[in-house]
Amino acid sequence: MTKQQPNTGTELWQRAKKLIPGGSMLLSKRAEMYLPQGWPAYFDRTEGCSVWDLDGREFKDLGLMGVGTNILGYSRPEVDSAVLATVNKGNLSTLNAPEEVYLAEKLVELHPWADMVRYARSGGEACAIAVRIGRAASGKDKVAFCGYHGWHDWYLAANLSSDDSLTGHLLPGLEPNGVPKALTGTSIPFQFNDLEQITQIMESDDHIGVIYMEVQRSDPPAPGFLEGVRALATKHNAVLIFDECTSGFRRELGGMHVHYGVEPDLASFGKTLGNGYAITAVIGRAEVMEAAQTSFISSTFWTERIGPTAALATLDVMEKESATQRVHEIGIGVQRQWEKLGADAGLTVTTGGLPALANFAVAGLDPLAVKTYITSRMLDQGYLAGNSLYVSLAHTDAILDQYYEALSVVFAELAQMDDTQLASALPNGTAQAGFKRLT
Amino acid sequence: MTKQQPNTGTELWQRAKKLIPGGSMLLSKRAEMYLPQGWPAYFDRTEGCSVWDLDGREFKDLGLMGVGTNILGYSRPEVDSAVLATVNKGNLSTLNAPEEVYLAEKLVELHPWADMVRYARSGGEACAIAVRIGRAASGKDKVAFCGYHGWHDWYLAANLSSDDSLTGHLLPGLEPNGVPKALTGTSIPFQFNDLEQITQIMESDDHIGVIYMEVQRSDPPAPGFLEGVRALATKHNAVLIFDECTSGFRRELGGMHVHYGVEPDLASFGKTLGNGYAITAVIGRAEVMEAAQTSFISSTFWTERIGPTAALATLDVMEKESATQRVHEIGIGVQRQWEKLGADAGLTVTTGGLPALANFAVAGLDPLAVKTYITSRMLDQGYLAGNSLYVSLAHTDAILDQYYEALSVVFAELAQMDDTQLASALPNGTAQAGFKRLT
Repeated sequence: MTKQQPNTGTELWQRAKKLIPGGSMLLSKRAEMYLPQGWPAYFDRTEGCSVWDLDGREFKDLGLMGVGTNILGYSRPEVDSAVLATVNKGNLSTLNAPEEVYLAEKLVELHPWADMVRYARSGGEACAIAVRIGRAASGKDKVAFCGYHGWHDWYLAANLSSDDSLTGHLLPGLEPNGVPKALTGTSIPFQFNDLEQITQIMESDDHIGVIYMEVQRSDPPAPGFLEGVRALATKHNAVLIFDECTSGFRRELGGMHVHYGVEPDLASFGKTLGNGYAITAVIGRAEVMEAAQTSFISSTFWTERIGPTAALATLDVMEKESATQRVHEIGIGVQRQWEKLGADAGLTVTTGGLPALANFAVAGLDPLAVKTYITSRMLDQGYLAGNSLYVSLAHTDAILDQYYEALSVVFAELAQMDDTQLASALPNGTAQAGFKRLT
Repeated sequence: MTKQQPNTGTELWQRAKKLIPGGSMLLSKRAEMYLPQGWPAYFDRTEGCSVWDLDGREFKDLGLMGVGTNILGYSRPEVDSAVLATVNKGNLSTLNAPEEVYLAEKLVELHPWADMVRYARSGGEACAIAVRIGRAASGKDKVAFCGYHGWHDWYLAANLSSDDSLTGHLLPGLEPNGVPKALTGTSIPFQFNDLEQITQIMESDDHIGVIYMEVQRSDPPAPGFLEGVRALATKHNAVLIFDECTSGFRRELGGMHVHYGVEPDLASFGKTLGNGYAITAVIGRAEVMEAAQTSFISSTFWTERIGPTAALATLDVMEKESATQRVHEIGIGVQRQWEKLGADAGLTVTTGGLPALANFAVAGLDPLAVKTYITSRMLDQGYLAGNSLYVSLAHTDAILDQYYEALSVVFAELAQMDDTQLASALPNGTAQAGFKRLT
């Protein structure tokens, strides 16, 4: 039996659900996605990889690290002091923030194929800007896509044809309510690493002006896949966009595509770019980006100053500390250790994902029950941790060794359980998976 | 002849235009919209209503005050210290920020008709969320709208039928490049204060599920207009949304609709809500807002903590200092003084706009040349000022008296000029109006 009792956070979460549809603005921050009734839900402060909840309890975050935002760790002094200086100087005025120009210079330097930059403050928004520019530049309205690209109409339109279109792209079964049915057929999914499929799609439809894809979410691209899609886009006068909102800066300083050596026409970045401050970007080749000037893409808060300030400081630390390579290497070590700890306990543990965004599965048991049980028992031991980890620089060897010790206790328990015992150990049920209505 | 010479800001602006399509993320922050070649373009720091440029020159902002964001003035200590505390505690983590719940409670308290809240970080995004929820709740895809609601597809779709549809809604002549043509006919404009027109639109089309409008942009609503639209929405099972991104908190503590006593189903807020920090919101009745749970509306950075922190502090100061009523009253005084100064100089000056977002026009001269000349000569005297003003609490009587003195000098000059003399006084040409490609 797990130990969690209602706390200030779980009580506030009940209030939140009455005031905010879904309780939080982010699906991945719903308490029910982790541990119904027991998840602390709210934080007071952070440092390194520690999060203190509203009752002053410290938890080590060996899980989502801000849902992937804090690659340098929480409350990184270099980033925070740059932001504090910006707050003291002024965040917004009638004039522009010079930092947005300096950041553009830096992003273009990191991506020599790119010439120009636009910013937004959320990832879905950056993707919507990229699609607008891609459609304007190609003069064609349809989008072929692969992977997850946010909440906007252009993307969810895929599910207007069939609720299953987004299955395999992170959001199975999602109903596209409120997306205009006129968009039916404008977004066409293809499967990652299936070059034949995307080739057929491009050959059979002259109206596809954009190919939007993640460079890598879980499996690496098969040899020739990215190059093949690049050639298809060029052949069919479509704009190739790599969505690096999740993958960017988790292996190379820049996008994952820098590692694989394939150049898109546009790329979108989010998540890690500001180490926990809101800043997202679209970068691209000048001839494509200039199409932004033939459309109206404008918003007041895209000109606030904290975003580019944080990004400049974050990129500086990433560069000095080889952060992007290090999180990749740390992640490889964690994946190996998960497998070893599993074997030691007599479990079959398999690992997947980008090393810097790694996950594991335990064979032979209900996956959601396993995830929930691990979350619950790790919480007992002072960790926010399930079966996936966004690696950060704050995940030092010392922190990881303690974490492995705690996890080995839970693996040993799981090795003694079948699904019935597992279910009875979770009196408040399992975590939710994917998109569900909250009550 | 005006005095401005190239400065660090104008030089950086030239670099920016090579790196950022359009130079800035906001149309209203383009140097060309104010004073080609002479506008300082970038700021170093702010305080009160002062902005220091990159050359250390101080300008008093008697113009856009952050394009309407800073109703309390720049660098307001109460707001900034709340934000500094949040940065020191941590801006984002795997857990949620409790401030988003407290802010929801406050917004619902200020709008008793509303039960629930969702946040975003830009105004266009908030409007797109509101439209998604409205379409999902009504089950109907078409939108009838009036006024300006941002850059998103749902809104620009109006111009797919005719480039003129958005004329009179702030963006004349805009080409909707990159907006899918499948959306043609989904957004239907109506004119403010024309109850007969919107009645006909609603009577003749069963597929309109959303009526989206600003409560007041320039002229006040005619008696019965808002009430009439409210009744139409109810009769036709459409969701009525008031866009208060610009008008909100400029007369009452809450939306402008609170002043007029008409209740929508949803309302969107931006601009002033965080006094210069990025936070926007959609509020609404529970039965409509709950439709958000039948669609996917989710983004990581909507959960950052600075936004709700700043909004809570801003609302607190607004309340304590009756800020929303005061900017309205100050604006009425400014409008009267503009007219008086004009008359004193022998000019016919007419005023318009919300008092807290006031503007004036000078009869008998080219309007853009007048605006540019005023901008230029006020800049000479240390002001960022044209022919419109977003009023803030930093616009004290002492500041305004100095401003009137400076403006009277310019009015006296204008009174001696015809259009030819005006043009020759502007060697770098007039400011741009509206949407144009920048080179």
